[in-house]
Amino acid sequence: MDIFEHVMEKARTAKSASRKMAVLSTAVKDAALRAMADAILRNRAAIREANDKDIAAAPAFGFTKAMIDRLTLTDSRIDAMAEGLREIAAFPDPVGKLTDVVRRPSGIRVGRMTVPIGLIGFIYESRPNVTVDAAGLSLKAGNAILLRGGKEAITSNVVLAGLLSETATANGIPDGAISIVEMTDREGVRHIVEAEGIVDLVIPRGGKGLIKAVVDNARVPVIKHYEGNCHVYVDRTADLDDAVKITVNAKTQRPGVCNAAETLLVHTDVAGVFLPRIAAELESRGVELRGCKRSQAFVPSMKPAVEDDWYTEYLDLILAVRVVDSLEQAVEHINTYSSGHTDAIVTSDIQSAEYFVTAVDSSSVMVNASTRFSDGGEYGLGAEIGISTDKLHARGPMGVADLTTYKWVVYGTGSIRE
Amino acid sequence: MDIFEHVMEKARTAKSASRKMAVLSTAVKDAALRAMADAILRNRAAIREANDKDIAAAPAFGFTKAMIDRLTLTDSRIDAMAEGLREIAAFPDPVGKLTDVVRRPSGIRVGRMTVPIGLIGFIYESRPNVTVDAAGLSLKAGNAILLRGGKEAITSNVVLAGLLSETATANGIPDGAISIVEMTDREGVRHIVEAEGIVDLVIPRGGKGLIKAVVDNARVPVIKHYEGNCHVYVDRTADLDDAVKITVNAKTQRPGVCNAAETLLVHTDVAGVFLPRIAAELESRGVELRGCKRSQAFVPSMKPAVEDDWYTEYLDLILAVRVVDSLEQAVEHINTYSSGHTDAIVTSDIQSAEYFVTAVDSSSVMVNASTRFSDGGEYGLGAEIGISTDKLHARGPMGVADLTTYKWVVYGTGSIRE
Repeated sequence: MDIFEHVMEKARTAKSASRKMAVLSTAVKDAALRAMADAILRNRAAIREANDKDIAAAPAFGFTKAMIDRLTLTDSRIDAMAEGLREIAAFPDPVGKLTDVVRRPSGIRVGRMTVPIGLIGFIYESRPNVTVDAAGLSLKAGNAILLRGGKEAITSNVVLAGLLSETATANGIPDGAISIVEMTDREGVRHIVEAEGIVDLVIPRGGKGLIKAVVDNARVPVIKHYEGNCHVYVDRTADLDDAVKITVNAKTQRPGVCNAAETLLVHTDVAGVFLPRIAAELESRGVELRGCKRSQAFVPSMKPAVEDDWYTEYLDLILAVRVVDSLEQAVEHINTYSSGHTDAIVTSDIQSAEYFVTAVDSSSVMVNASTRFSDGGEYGLGAEIGISTDKLHARGPMGVADLTTYKWVVYGTGSIRE
Repeated sequence: MDIFEHVMEKARTAKSASRKMAVLSTAVKDAALRAMADAILRNRAAIREANDKDIAAAPAFGFTKAMIDRLTLTDSRIDAMAEGLREIAAFPDPVGKLTDVVRRPSGIRVGRMTVPIGLIGFIYESRPNVTVDAAGLSLKAGNAILLRGGKEAITSNVVLAGLLSETATANGIPDGAISIVEMTDREGVRHIVEAEGIVDLVIPRGGKGLIKAVVDNARVPVIKHYEGNCHVYVDRTADLDDAVKITVNAKTQRPGVCNAAETLLVHTDVAGVFLPRIAAELESRGVELRGCKRSQAFVPSMKPAVEDDWYTEYLDLILAVRVVDSLEQAVEHINTYSSGHTDAIVTSDIQSAEYFVTAVDSSSVMVNASTRFSDGGEYGLGAEIGISTDKLHARGPMGVADLTTYKWVVYGTGSIRE
């Protein structure tokens, strides 16, 4: 079978399942999710065996030790996957909420009802536990999912998806609701994103190459989990103790993730006091600073920043630093260079906070808080399927409710339009 | 100047305006909208003069009398455009709503704030009054708009957009917030939908050729106003008087619009009574019926329906008719052939209604009401920019609130993530 036929067969079966899923009861979905959690624990040995094969193959893909660590399903990670499914089962059902119901002068009652999106294509890389999260969230929201993970985790992914799919089907979920593309040919991605009328939404989550492959070919709607070039702006009126705490946390608590800060902007009035202080704190933690000319004047140890630095998501212990003349200039810098993920202001001035919150065009805007809070768990969404850097439908951390859409429901009494 | 440069210059200016618009006050936006209404009335003569040029050119485009009528800006239509802007000014501001604010265990407060989308590309055909509606709705939601109307109305559109833009700018709206592509070369559409990073959303509204040109080339998100292949299903338990009223209204009240019914599905148990009755009603109103074999047995005057009929949006006094064996078969027919616009059931059975509402995958689902109600005005949204047949972000009638998105706003107190 060639890759096109393989993808289309999976996609059509999944689409057909999605049609039947809109009418599933909450009880059936939640029981299936709990059974899936049990199945994961019961099949621990088979999962580890499959995962060992991926780990054995990893050096051939040029994987570093850190990358192999992310790929590895330890016992505690297997426990966490099962626990994640139980947590999803415990969420309220996001489907079937009827809101904004009004009676109109014509006599009809009209409102909006939350409904599943349909078939979601989920294209991702590396960590096999993402397979389980994505399948669980998708099922909870009444969607079918077509999983397409990377070749580096294919054996783990296929075993996990197979286990979940089997268990789901045995518990009243339509066959094909959890499907996985087993052939990892690159063109598989293209076939998924070109499947107009079959795939309702594609969510890509991975490196730039993956995102580009999706966006360049997409004929179906896409919600991207793209990069996080995040900023901390220290305002003229900032409490500098808070500014130090927040900058250090945003840069160093976990530098390799998308909500870590990559550029620090400092108001000129506080630069002379703040920059030497934050530089000492960051450099003692091994952070390399790259500053504009004015920053360098205060901290001679800084390397010079070039235009490219403002655009860069380092995902590493490097921070670009720029002195700005005003709040407005800070906002302009952010709206020019930010990836629209998460940007923070440290300020004591309520007008500055209000202006920053209103004017910065990013999915999360923080006042006196670290960019690291930009996360579904921290926001109270529970598990997240990704962090959208797009503007439509879902923005920022995407929880299970973002995997639904709505329909209009109208109740009449033999009502006709005059 | 070539078309690419022309579009890009307009788009960049509009994008830059959109950045400034996020912070506009409600009072400034509403005053500008009222001034725009005044400007339309004050410049009635100039508008009619421009419109006369389009009307004079129309026969060369092969326009029928009905098409020329749609193109014509009569005095009452000019009044209606101004009145439309006043109504939009009177809406509550959709921007800046802060909802779902919660305090999290970490101490942060987090919520969602409605914000403008940014720059909207609006690609449309024919009626020049759409120019005014779209510009007004876009401004109210704090967006910049790049208008690209058809060549058949270009003189009217350019005069109207110029008037609105000038008046907006004179009233504190950033220059470029209302922009129009003045060159109607076909490639202009492609340049707009390829402007990644500049245009945030494209809304196409027009015939199939236009929609196809947009979708085939789109690199930016699109919300389509596509076709309406709408259904009325008469259930086993339907009140047949209601069924007659609703079917006649859905088919004949305005057959040329997207929420008119195109296919009638009838439960086999009532087909023998209902079909002859509805056929007499419809045929007396000049409706041509095309039926399945079983329908034809009850109404011999019906022409035979072929597979293509189930897919067709006639926009004319033609109705396809099919007898089904069950509610489930009706739903399956709809989910297979419907364009996902609006579908209705006539029933007395509450379980049938519930199943139909849940299982039919369309933007509007009606119970005992005519498909003709699927409309922003009827739903209480006020003016609508279109009716989305897509599933993400906005579905069904799109009002001014659907021209906003949201950002997450986090307030801390020097908060860091542990």
